[in-house]
Amino acid sequence: MSPQERREQLLELGTTLLARSSLEELSIEMLAAEAGISRGLLYHYFGSKHEFHLAVVRRAVQDLYQIVAPQDFDDPIEQLTASLGAYADYVKANYSGYVSLVRAAQGGDDDLRAIYYEARAILTSRIFDEPSARQLAALGIQDSPQLRLLLNGWAAMVEEVVVAWVEDDRGLDRDEVLARLASGLLALLGAE
Amino acid sequence: MSPQERREQLLELGTTLLARSSLEELSIEMLAAEAGISRGLLYHYFGSKHEFHLAVVRRAVQDLYQIVAPQDFDDPIEQLTASLGAYADYVKANYSGYVSLVRAAQGGDDDLRAIYYEARAILTSRIFDEPSARQLAALGIQDSPQLRLLLNGWAAMVEEVVVAWVEDDRGLDRDEVLARLASGLLALLGAE
Repeated sequence: MSPQERREQLLELGTTLLARSSLEELSIEMLAAEAGISRGLLYHYFGSKHEFHLAVVRRAVQDLYQIVAPQDFDDPIEQLTASLGAYADYVKANYSGYVSLVRAAQGGDDDLRAIYYEARAILTSRIFDEPSARQLAALGIQDSPQLRLLLNGWAAMVEEVVVAWVEDDRGLDRDEVLARLASGLLALLGAE
Repeated sequence: MSPQERREQLLELGTTLLARSSLEELSIEMLAAEAGISRGLLYHYFGSKHEFHLAVVRRAVQDLYQIVAPQDFDDPIEQLTASLGAYADYVKANYSGYVSLVRAAQGGDDDLRAIYYEARAILTSRIFDEPSARQLAALGIQDSPQLRLLLNGWAAMVEEVVVAWVEDDRGLDRDEVLARLASGLLALLGAE
């Protein structure tokens, strides 16, 4: 295995550990124990705990990017709810790590903050790519800096709602949450 | 002036200073200099810098609560946009302090976090009080734990959008931002 492949494999393990541990708990020591290799070697791969965390988070963002990839539905609401559903399932499966990441990003860590906000913008601005761009255009919604500002706000709402719902669903049905978030977006963006 | 009145006056000054300073910058020393009294006396009133910050933030939340009080409009969208407009103006006038407070609350400070989330819930759940409760009921929207979950998410969106808009409005008109946020809420809550 090349050093690059080995590093990838370790990152994979890191994101798996992050599913059930918070970012604060996720240490080089934990990874070393799980991977059965020395801490020294891991420091060689990642440099520091902080760099290790950034690499794991970047990797988790890549995973999420694949997971929420748009399918080819004809209807924009179906399109959106499919991606939202994949996101909600991801948050549910990776709850501890996800919540700790959001907190760290919103709090003081500038590097994590930058990755987090960039990831959010990349993930959500995909609705202005095909196939959903065409569907939105039919509703009078065109990509613009103004709509991206609103879209970013919607992303904050999705995160808040999904995290709270995973914590305690209050009897709110999964499909209903997704449908509400999707129709909230169309109203926000001014669908005709 | 009674000690209680004096403390109130100092808190008033603290919130005024918070308008143009971040929470980290806002110190007992700064307050002492502005009020022309000794640091010792301020420690007597507030105990510690942390307690001082909590008291100022609680006071700022009370101010905001007054500021966004619902007017008596007939239309729920007018009602909502009036409160949203008052909130946006507040964020604009108190930008540094507001953003630093949000960051501190979302980050590691558990006391601030508790005040922040409680304040947000109190501020937003007012739409289920009169007069807007009646207007929403006419649209098929009734107060419930499920809708409060969604409403909380909407509050996160409002904050994200308004803060980003104050930072750089991207040519987005104030009335348009408010109208979009209001109609996004009605869609989210399932208005008929």
